[in-house]
Amino acid sequence: MSKEAVRAKFNDVYTLIRDELIEHIKSQGMPPDAVEWFTRNLDYNTPGGKLNRGLSVVDTAKILLGDKFTEEHYKQAAILGWCVELLQAFFLVSDDIMDTSITRRGQPCWYRTPNVGMIAINDAFMLEAAIYHLLKVHFKSQPYYVELLELFHDTTYQTEMGQLIDLITAPEDHVDLNRFSLTKHKLIVQYKTSYYSFYLPVALALHMCGVSSPKAFQTALDILLPLGEYFQIQDDYLDYHAPPEVLGKIGTDILDNKCSWCINKALEIVTPEQRAVLDANYGRKDAECERRVKAVYEQIGLPKIYEQYEAEVTGKIRKLIDGLDENTQGKKAVYISFLSKIEGRTK
Amino acid sequence: MSKEAVRAKFNDVYTLIRDELIEHIKSQGMPPDAVEWFTRNLDYNTPGGKLNRGLSVVDTAKILLGDKFTEEHYKQAAILGWCVELLQAFFLVSDDIMDTSITRRGQPCWYRTPNVGMIAINDAFMLEAAIYHLLKVHFKSQPYYVELLELFHDTTYQTEMGQLIDLITAPEDHVDLNRFSLTKHKLIVQYKTSYYSFYLPVALALHMCGVSSPKAFQTALDILLPLGEYFQIQDDYLDYHAPPEVLGKIGTDILDNKCSWCINKALEIVTPEQRAVLDANYGRKDAECERRVKAVYEQIGLPKIYEQYEAEVTGKIRKLIDGLDENTQGKKAVYISFLSKIEGRTK
Ligand SMILES: [Mg+2]
Ligand SMILES: [Mg+2]
Ligand SMILES: [Mg+2]
Ligand SMILES: [Mg+2]
Ligand SMILES: [Mg+2]
Ligand SMILES: [Mg+2]
Repeated sequence: MSKEAVRAKFNDVYTLIRDELIEHIKSQGMPPDAVEWFTRNLDYNTPGGKLNRGLSVVDTAKILLGDKFTEEHYKQAAILGWCVELLQAFFLVSDDIMDTSITRRGQPCWYRTPNVGMIAINDAFMLEAAIYHLLKVHFKSQPYYVELLELFHDTTYQTEMGQLIDLITAPEDHVDLNRFSLTKHKLIVQYKTSYYSFYLPVALALHMCGVSSPKAFQTALDILLPLGEYFQIQDDYLDYHAPPEVLGKIGTDILDNKCSWCINKALEIVTPEQRAVLDANYGRKDAECERRVKAVYEQIGLPKIYEQYEAEVTGKIRKLIDGLDENTQGKKAVYISFLSKIEGRTK
Repeated sequence: MSKEAVRAKFNDVYTLIRDELIEHIKSQGMPPDAVEWFTRNLDYNTPGGKLNRGLSVVDTAKILLGDKFTEEHYKQAAILGWCVELLQAFFLVSDDIMDTSITRRGQPCWYRTPNVGMIAINDAFMLEAAIYHLLKVHFKSQPYYVELLELFHDTTYQTEMGQLIDLITAPEDHVDLNRFSLTKHKLIVQYKTSYYSFYLPVALALHMCGVSSPKAFQTALDILLPLGEYFQIQDDYLDYHAPPEVLGKIGTDILDNKCSWCINKALEIVTPEQRAVLDANYGRKDAECERRVKAVYEQIGLPKIYEQYEAEVTGKIRKLIDGLDENTQGKKAVYISFLSKIEGRTK
C-alpha cells in the first residue's frame, strides 16, 4: 500500500470514531451549537498531523500478529492509534496557549481562531475525555481494558510532568541558561515526548495483541526511551541546521529560548567568551542575536558533534535490538521499524 | 464531633495524599523546582474550599455502613472525597482562566499569582492526573476499581460538556439573551454542576460500600440531579438576593452575563417593555445597569416566585425520598442528609 493509501485507510477510522463521539454527545441531549462546536474542535485538532504516533500502533500490531492480523485487528489498532492522536491533540491545543504560539500544522492555533480564545482550554479537556469514552465503547470487554486505562493515565501524567519541567526551565520571557543542562534536557525529553510518542503506541499494541509479560513492556521502555531521546535530539538539531525548504518550516528554537539539545551541548563545551555570547543572545526575539548564537554553534563544530552523537546512539540502539531475546522480550522487527523511520530523516 | 473537628480530620487525610503525590513525583526523578511547584499547586488549589463534595463521600459511606463503619472505611472514603476535591480544583483553576476571574476563595486565582500565568493550564491537568494516581495506589485491588475509573471519566466528560454549553451560551463579552432559556439553564446545571457535585460523591460511596445494583445508582441520579438543580437555583437566587454580609461575597451574576435562574425565570414572564430593559442592561459591567435589572426582578416579584419554587421542589424531592424502597434503592437517610444541608441555607 502506498503511503497515501495507508493514511487514507487510517483516516477512514477517524471518520468512524468522530461520528461515534458526536452521536454520543447528541444522545446526551447537547444542543446543536454545542454539537457543532465539538465537531469543529475534533476536526480542527485531531487529524491533519503527521500521524506517526497513531500509525505506529497499527504498524506494531501488524508486526506482532503477522499472518493472524485481520481487518478486525486493523480497526482495533487504528482506534487505539486515534486515541493516541487525541491525546496529542489535547497536549498541542493547550501547549499552544501556554507558549502563545501563532500557527500549528500550517494554520492558526485553535485558540487563535474566531470566537474560540480560552474556550480552547475546555476543548482540550474534551479531546482527552473522548479517549476514555472510546476505550469504554470499544475495549470494555477486553481482559486488558484496565491496563489500557492505566497506560493512558500514567502516560498523560508523565507528559504533564515533562511539560511542567519544560515550562519552568525555559519560560519564553525569561532567559537563564544556568537552568539548562544536558541532564535536564534528557529528563524533559523523556517525560514530555518519549513516553507518549514512543512507548505508548507500542505498549498499546502489545496489550491489544495479548502480550502481558512485564519483560516485554520493560524491553519496550529500554529501547524506546533512548529512541525517543534520539528522535528529539535530531528534531532539535534539524531545527537549527536543516534548510527551511527541506524542513518545511523555519526553526525558531533559538529565538524561543527552547531547552534544545544544541544549546545544552554548546553550554557544556564553550569557552567563557562564547558563553557570554550565548547568555547575551539566546532566546531574544531578534534575528541578529540568533545569528550570533549560530556562529558559536559553528565555532564549536556542532554539526560534527551531532554526527558523532548520531552514529553512536544508533549503534547503541541497534545493539539493544540485536541483543533482544524474541521468545521473552518481543519482536525485533517492531524496533527496527521504528529506528528505520527515524534514522537519517531530514525533516 | 464539631464541624471544625470533622474538617480537621478530613484535612489530615489531605496531608497524607499530598505527601504521597509528592513522594511519587520525586521518585520519578522530578527536579526540586518542579517538586516545589507541584506542591504549591496542590496546596493552593485543593484544600481551602467548603469541602462539601469531599465530605459527602464520607457522610454517605458512614450512613450506608452504619455500625460497620471503621477507621479504615473512613480513610478510604476520605481519599475518594479528596479525589472529588482534586477534580473540583482541576475545574476551578481552569474555569477561572476561561472566565478571566480575579479572586477565588478570598485569594487571587492561581493563574494570577506570580510567575504562574498560563502554566496554570498544565497545573490543572496535573490535579486531574493526580486523581488516577491515587485511585491506582489505593483502590487497584478492589473489585469496583474499574467502576471508580469510569465514574470519574464519565463525570469529567459530563462536566466539560456543561462547561462548553455554558461558555458558548453566556460569553462574558457578548450579551444575547435570546440564547438563554430555562431549558438551557437546566441542561447547563445538570451537566456542569449536578453530576460532579451531587451524583459523583454518592456514587463513589455506593461503590466503596459494595453496592452494585444498577437500581441504587439510578435512584441516586433520580434524586440527586433535581437536588443539584435546586442547589444551583438557590445559589443563583442568593447571588441576587442575599445580603452580602450574610453571603460572604458580593453577587456579580448580573454584571457577568451569567445564565442564572433569575434572568431565565424573568425572561419567561416579563412584558416587552421589561424585556427591553433586560436586553439593554444585563451583563454590562455597570452598577446602574445592574440596578435596572434588579428593578425588573422586583417588579415581577422574583422573591415570591423563588419561594414558591423552593416549596414546590423541596416537596417533590421529599416525596421522591419517601417513596424509595430501602431494600433495593438505597438508604433514605443519605438523601435526607443532603436535602437538610441545602434547604434554607443563606450562604
Ligand atoms: Mg509549543
Ligand atoms: Mg511548550
Ligand atoms: Mg522542535
Ligand atoms: Mg467562573
Ligand atoms: Mg465559568
Ligand atoms: Mg453562583
